[in-house]
Amino acid sequence: MKRPIRILGIDPGLRRTGWGVIACEGNKLVFLACGSVETHERAALAERLVAIHDGLARVVEEFAPDEAAVEATFVNRDGAATLKLGQARGIAMLIPARAGLAVAEYAPNLVKKTVVGAGHAEKAQIRMMIDVLLPKANPRSHDAADALAIAITHAHHRARAELRVVGA
Amino acid sequence: MKRPIRILGIDPGLRRTGWGVIACEGNKLVFLACGSVETHERAALAERLVAIHDGLARVVEEFAPDEAAVEATFVNRDGAATLKLGQARGIAMLIPARAGLAVAEYAPNLVKKTVVGAGHAEKAQIRMMIDVLLPKANPRSHDAADALAIAITHAHHRARAELRVVGA
Repeated sequence: MKRPIRILGIDPGLRRTGWGVIACEGNKLVFLACGSVETHERAALAERLVAIHDGLARVVEEFAPDEAAVEATFVNRDGAATLKLGQARGIAMLIPARAGLAVAEYAPNLVKKTVVGAGHAEKAQIRMMIDVLLPKANPRSHDAADALAIAITHAHHRARAELRVVGA
Repeated sequence: MKRPIRILGIDPGLRRTGWGVIACEGNKLVFLACGSVETHERAALAERLVAIHDGLARVVEEFAPDEAAVEATFVNRDGAATLKLGQARGIAMLIPARAGLAVAEYAPNLVKKTVVGAGHAEKAQIRMMIDVLLPKANPRSHDAADALAIAITHAHHRARAELRVVGA
């Protein structure tokens, strides 16, 4: 019997980084765990990055995922916000890569299209589809739900995941 | 005799991350080492971030700095460039912080003002002042020279470094 592939999805953010782990065997998806790493806005930037690092490193250690996927954010906000996101995103990609995992990137629109069926879905619709696709997940935050959506997207597209950024 | 403080300066970038280590005893600055970590533009983003991580981790291990300083970039470029820089910068701050070092941030203008005496100095002027202040350094890249300039800036301002971002 082929061992199910474990996928770690990450929705990076300096304030909150969502993560979700699913197992995928053919078309069957199974929820394993999800959560978010939160950092204090008043803490020094370097401390916040260490907190994200340590939180995600624990997830990788505990759930031993085989592959990882991170949201490929195309940013149209102010430079300061983009820089913050970039810093968190750097850590989010570093952790699985250092553990030897391939790290795929998916554009937000493709994640929405894969999970909801429309590229411009609302957060609430993503949440609803997570409840349908992974009834046991019951994520307590939008970030964890988004991370699961990214993991599901990777499960659907992983055969083509040599395309590092799919869609736009 | 008081042990000299070793300062690691980092000028982060996805393509090239410059680093420089100086020792500082009172007003006296001594060059210890400098260089840059380069990544291939064609490599996967996650691989490039791992390369930056591993390169800087080796520097911290070899030179055992006591304090670190990173350039605080205020970005006015396009979002994609800012995101790239942010990702590299996240790694650049993570490494010294995980090693237990305090990580200060200095605005580019303050670095120029400290090293050259003017907030709008050219890269060539910074390079020239590095040759004057640290004659043994002879950095082979602008990134390494900039990293030394950041380390020098921290040497001058470290007493006030509880201000995390100084100047603007």
